[in-house]
Amino acid sequence: MTTLDMKNNQWTLAARPVGLIKDTDFKHSTAPVSAPKEGQILVRNSLISVDPAMRSWMNEGKSYMESIRIGDVMRAGGAGYVVQSQDSRFSVGDAVTGAVGVQEYAILEAKDATKVDATSAPLSSYLNVLGIPGFTAYFGLLEVGQLKQGETVLVSGAAGAVGSSVGQIAKVKGCRVVGIAGGPEKCKYLTETLGFDAAVDYKSPDVRKLLAVACKDGVDVYFDNVGGAILDLALARLRPRARIVLSGAVSQYNNTERGEGPKNYMALLMFRARMEGFVIFDYEARYPEAQAQLREWLAAGKIKSHEDIADSLMAFPSALRRLFEGANTGKMLVKLRDGAGAV
Amino acid sequence: MTTLDMKNNQWTLAARPVGLIKDTDFKHSTAPVSAPKEGQILVRNSLISVDPAMRSWMNEGKSYMESIRIGDVMRAGGAGYVVQSQDSRFSVGDAVTGAVGVQEYAILEAKDATKVDATSAPLSSYLNVLGIPGFTAYFGLLEVGQLKQGETVLVSGAAGAVGSSVGQIAKVKGCRVVGIAGGPEKCKYLTETLGFDAAVDYKSPDVRKLLAVACKDGVDVYFDNVGGAILDLALARLRPRARIVLSGAVSQYNNTERGEGPKNYMALLMFRARMEGFVIFDYEARYPEAQAQLREWLAAGKIKSHEDIADSLMAFPSALRRLFEGANTGKMLVKLRDGAGAV
Repeated sequence: MTTLDMKNNQWTLAARPVGLIKDTDFKHSTAPVSAPKEGQILVRNSLISVDPAMRSWMNEGKSYMESIRIGDVMRAGGAGYVVQSQDSRFSVGDAVTGAVGVQEYAILEAKDATKVDATSAPLSSYLNVLGIPGFTAYFGLLEVGQLKQGETVLVSGAAGAVGSSVGQIAKVKGCRVVGIAGGPEKCKYLTETLGFDAAVDYKSPDVRKLLAVACKDGVDVYFDNVGGAILDLALARLRPRARIVLSGAVSQYNNTERGEGPKNYMALLMFRARMEGFVIFDYEARYPEAQAQLREWLAAGKIKSHEDIADSLMAFPSALRRLFEGANTGKMLVKLRDGAGAV
Repeated sequence: MTTLDMKNNQWTLAARPVGLIKDTDFKHSTAPVSAPKEGQILVRNSLISVDPAMRSWMNEGKSYMESIRIGDVMRAGGAGYVVQSQDSRFSVGDAVTGAVGVQEYAILEAKDATKVDATSAPLSSYLNVLGIPGFTAYFGLLEVGQLKQGETVLVSGAAGAVGSSVGQIAKVKGCRVVGIAGGPEKCKYLTETLGFDAAVDYKSPDVRKLLAVACKDGVDVYFDNVGGAILDLALARLRPRARIVLSGAVSQYNNTERGEGPKNYMALLMFRARMEGFVIFDYEARYPEAQAQLREWLAAGKIKSHEDIADSLMAFPSALRRLFEGANTGKMLVKLRDGAGAV
């Protein structure tokens, strides 16, 4: 392995977390930067995507993706620029996204990297509305949820990356949209900035009543990003033939024991309703279709791409924790300092 | 209202049950028999269908069907023979099925009665494999469950009316079938009489392990008739893209409080699986299609119609309780004494 005269700052997995992640579950270290081999590219990362699913990758055992081994660089999506290329499809300076890991430099197989146009939209939007969160909202709502014009959509984690895309896409599709988020600030953001019809603060002691008022005619599609008690509340508001899209369960990832199940699941029987889980990677072949549509809506100002950006690689552990504290509004990202690693 | 010179023995609802039903939740009484009006028929009932759903009709409040009022004749499906007809579609002596109630005589609107051929199949099978339980199995498995040849089907309440049809239909469709039932007798019945590939006794302390062995390659379709703890066990055995068909929840109907939800519901997310409730009445327009197919299989000996028959109207409350005690094997029916009501 040829190494280059550059240092790579990295966060590796130091321990399998119990409950909420701690700084000591990660280890900051430096490593030499390898030269790309035939078919590979070397990317200098600009932005690291911080995602709730990271928490499940840190656990041992079976999930929809392999868990990360202790000592490995923490898995992450991200975006950056090609600094060396051993593949004819990429040139130095190309903007790319891919599974770059929580580090300054990444070697990617060229076939696993995606070239993006950072002139027509900000690089950050390719990790948000024009990337996996946007695709998750798009396919979850339209394919799994089979959304139809005029229906009522309820979405939890509504101020987060996926949730804010869900609500905005549903508005474009002519639906009534109710968002669930934590705190009056976020609720105001949903209705005033993103154009939701109503927002419910799940931290309110009156959440059940507020939800009943906001969804007084029931819910056709509930897009669930959080699981737990909110899922149960949503089950109580279903309309006949409602669809519940299980996209994530941020309230559950830190549990050391399985939480309670949704007590109201019998509503599925009563309302002939469906609850279905999905994993976005199954739709990979159709990402271009989703991106083209989302790009059109973004350019036309019909949807917005809003990011919550931590300003250094060192901030990664606390940025990840922000997700589980519900502190972020919009897609959580870590920005790497300019010229990072050029030591 | 013209009354006839006959007495009608009936069971009416006396009280809304709390928990398991008691004899005193019903009241036995007699009433005069009315003459049918234009467009109606008078039916002398031979068989009353005893169904788990009866328990939910006895509760107050919203379900997929209106609840029964105190004092009303207990709602029930059944089969019998026309004794008077005021509709050109029916003649005296015709065998019919319909919502006859728990009584000896019923006035039915002719449009709501179904003429059946009691010479080509026993009348009882029209309340079982050739009736609602068979249709529930047929559409639940093939439409909601989207069953494909070669898949593994798990069904709970497998020795009951719906469950035994589910397993037999799945066998006809070339699937591997595992049934869950209570006690070694029923399990033996499933494998030896109905041709299931395996049976698991839910009363065994090793039920979790037995289920893991019987479904060692996982489950593609779980047809749930019971809910509760068994649903949770089944969720832990799913294969990718599995379908859970919620058809009933006999374990839950007597609960005075909502039971626990399925703790393992997150398996839906992990396995991109779906859980969907349905109500058979939504498929009413397609009953003839199902009946024709089921009749063909029944005539060819590919499926069996097995009934558990209590031998008098007086036995109705205890027959209903048998369902919730899991005492019945096959469709639970009440047979009325010959010449009943011809006082």
